Amino acid sequence: MYVLAINFKTYKTSYGSRALSIAKEADSVAREYSGLVRVILLPPATEILRIANAVSHSSVFAQHVDPVEEGAYTGHVTVEMVKEAGATGVMINHSERRLRLDEISFILGKARKLGLETLVCADTPEVAAAISVLSPYMLAIEPPELIGTGIPVSKAKPEVVTGTVARVRELNKEVTILTGAGITTGDDVTAAIKLGTMGVLVASAIMKAQEPGKVIKEMSESILKALE
Amino acid sequence: MYVLAINFKTYKTSYGSRALSIAKEADSVAREYSGLVRVILLPPATEILRIANAVSHSSVFAQHVDPVEEGAYTGHVTVEMVKEAGATGVMINHSERRLRLDEISFILGKARKLGLETLVCADTPEVAAAISVLSPYMLAIEPPELIGTGIPVSKAKPEVVTGTVARVRELNKEVTILTGAGITTGDDVTAAIKLGTMGVLVASAIMKAQEPGKVIKEMSESILKALE
Amino acid sequence: MYVLAINFKTYKTSYGSRALSIAKEADSVAREYSGLVRVILLPPATEILRIANAVSHSSVFAQHVDPVEEGAYTGHVTVEMVKEAGATGVMINHSERRLRLDEISFILGKARKLGLETLVCADTPEVAAAISVLSPYMLAIEPPELIGTGIPVSKAKPEVVTGTVARVRELNKEVTILTGAGITTGDDVTAAIKLGTMGVLVASAIMKAQEPGKVIKEMSESILKALE
Amino acid sequence: MYVLAINFKTYKTSYGSRALSIAKEADSVAREYSGLVRVILLPPATEILRIANAVSHSSVFAQHVDPVEEGAYTGHVTVEMVKEAGATGVMINHSERRLRLDEISFILGKARKLGLETLVCADTPEVAAAISVLSPYMLAIEPPELIGTGIPVSKAKPEVVTGTVARVRELNKEVTILTGAGITTGDDVTAAIKLGTMGVLVASAIMKAQEPGKVIKEMSESILKALE
Repeated sequence: MYVLAINFKTYKTSYGSRALSIAKEADSVAREYSGLVRVILLPPATEILRIANAVSHSSVFAQHVDPVEEGAYTGHVTVEMVKEAGATGVMINHSERRLRLDEISFILGKARKLGLETLVCADTPEVAAAISVLSPYMLAIEPPELIGTGIPVSKAKPEVVTGTVARVRELNKEVTILTGAGITTGDDVTAAIKLGTMGVLVASAIMKAQEPGKVIKEMSESILKALE
Repeated sequence: MYVLAINFKTYKTSYGSRALSIAKEADSVAREYSGLVRVILLPPATEILRIANAVSHSSVFAQHVDPVEEGAYTGHVTVEMVKEAGATGVMINHSERRLRLDEISFILGKARKLGLETLVCADTPEVAAAISVLSPYMLAIEPPELIGTGIPVSKAKPEVVTGTVARVRELNKEVTILTGAGITTGDDVTAAIKLGTMGVLVASAIMKAQEPGKVIKEMSESILKALE
Repeated sequence: MYVLAINFKTYKTSYGSRALSIAKEADSVAREYSGLVRVILLPPATEILRIANAVSHSSVFAQHVDPVEEGAYTGHVTVEMVKEAGATGVMINHSERRLRLDEISFILGKARKLGLETLVCADTPEVAAAISVLSPYMLAIEPPELIGTGIPVSKAKPEVVTGTVARVRELNKEVTILTGAGITTGDDVTAAIKLGTMGVLVASAIMKAQEPGKVIKEMSESILKALE
Repeated sequence: MYVLAINFKTYKTSYGSRALSIAKEADSVAREYSGLVRVILLPPATEILRIANAVSHSSVFAQHVDPVEEGAYTGHVTVEMVKEAGATGVMINHSERRLRLDEISFILGKARKLGLETLVCADTPEVAAAISVLSPYMLAIEPPELIGTGIPVSKAKPEVVTGTVARVRELNKEVTILTGAGITTGDDVTAAIKLGTMGVLVASAIMKAQEPGKVIKEMSESILKALE
């Protein structure tokens, strides 16, 4: 199934009632496109519980978890905690929260053991290839220089996307590959699918939109269009 | 008012129903000792909302916040978010989550602006003195080598506590000074008060106790005893 | 004595023969203004030995040291090592290499014990005040947003400089205060002195100059002019 | 050719005259076993110049480099700088100086462009496999829990070594694989070779030895013995 992953980040709209409202709108779209488009919501740690309780057709993933076991780790967020709060997956290694390679490996192992899905971000085809060896469930290619620009990687650097698909597929046949960075319009989503990826990772285009629900719907429709 | 601050850390008891149960037991004690002992609960980020909603006689502080403004900071926890979730204060710079000096200054400024209380940890009298210049609301002296040992700083290194009080008071008359690290029994609490601090920061002695409520009660009584 | 501290950073001119040539030119100026202007050279770690051996009228400081004791710390640069290579001081906490407060305290203690001078950078008057409590030998106020801009803090934000002098002097009568960030011309140096600081910390204006020696000379002259 | 890589770390013997003396002793052995054993010396950043100038039969690698281009990066050590000082290679991602995956990829690309060899450390076969996709020149498998213990990985966890060789060879036929962690005696070296790796990465067994030269010689002989 094709994926629309919404990274809430840490905007004014990322928490509290505005975040809840975006989550519910996304969940409506998820219900409408059920079986066709999988919607993944990535709220901040403090909002996982509230949003996980409020949605029923979308998945909830953490934006990040810390690479520690349970114990004396003041101020850390563990895999166990986000699972307890209702997340069924974790994203890690976003360009705004990069991890060391040993930490990525540790978290992937732990999430697997606890039954959570994993989504790992990569900045280049080469890094994506290395990550794919660690067998995450999903992988997003996001050239950091395009994040938040409104310039979609699928247009500005399509070769990064196709290069990622090519290199990763040599090493890992199963990982779901997403396109991130600069995805703004439905056309960008369509382009991402046509370049061979299974969906998109979007943030500002939805979180900073006047009508987030409308953008979510448009992007979901574009996934279907790309498949026609 | 004297302070009993409970750092939930990231133990098995730190989240979900066990954390909620400890929070409720602490809140009972807080009600009982209302006006005499101030109980501060420091749950992990994912549990702030649930615990803040469940208690009414205790304060809820975050264990840590990240030094960023609102914006594109995937995987970060901002001051705004923990406030929205129900925290009325933030702890920072715990030895398990140290911050850079410019970050401490940034977070203190931001928390002040948003009306949140602040509690900053320090490992030595000298560092405590430097922090006191930044005017936090509370300050905890915790020699990291004693954290989690069950050996209270008030016994093992009383001069660290008295030295902190002396050095900080030259620079800052108002900051509330707490004693942390190794506080295990009511006697340790009494000692901390007698050394001139206004309370304690406790973690494992409560979070890993067979009967956390009993320990919380004992420690609260010890605060009162110290004052007799 | 007034100070002209030259941060070599990591430019193309910061190592090898170009760095050596700048160091020698600076040393000539240091000889000329001996007793009036103190020149401090801050080469990268790999160049300390070569430059310390080549100069005789200037001091050599490390740009940074790691907060570790001797031992199993692969890839770290210790206070002992830079001393062995010929440095007589260490700069720490530059905005491009910030440290945690406990690390600053650790390094200051260690440098003191080993007989090295210390220079700690601060981004705001408040942070400078906190650092001054730790008793460094020198302190540089550098608003990071002006570093490398060519806009001198002494013109753009004179209140940051005067505020730093005021706040630090309440807490520490002895620390030498320098002005950094955006210092480009001799006039900027004069302004820094007139605002009450004892010299400047300069990088790009010298390291990227067509004729570094000329700029060093001009800045030294400006120190003297400011004193007339 | 089989490799004996000596990580100087940051011991009392790692800099100054003691480091130089160990380097010269190693270089003698390198001359003696020329064409059979390749000796790689990894001094700290401040000592690269002195040691590179003093040896002629050994290679000199940096223990670490920072993931930055040339520019305004105070306190960083760049690939260009260690090359200028005389290193012909860089080690990165040692367990005492781990890097993010994107940083490893960045440094490998830069070192390749500048003509330097690369040696990347890994803690598990899985991480080693991921790194091998980034095409380093050499790779060392070092379970961090054995580093400095005197318990050789080749005895305590031979399956980590053989597992690494097996997993890496599926992905990368060319990378030279070394065994690290706990290598203390000639027998440990022999075991490492017999498990299918091309040499060893050693630190404390040489740097803390009464007679470092003797250990270096014994380890070199053991490489040859393993090949008989």
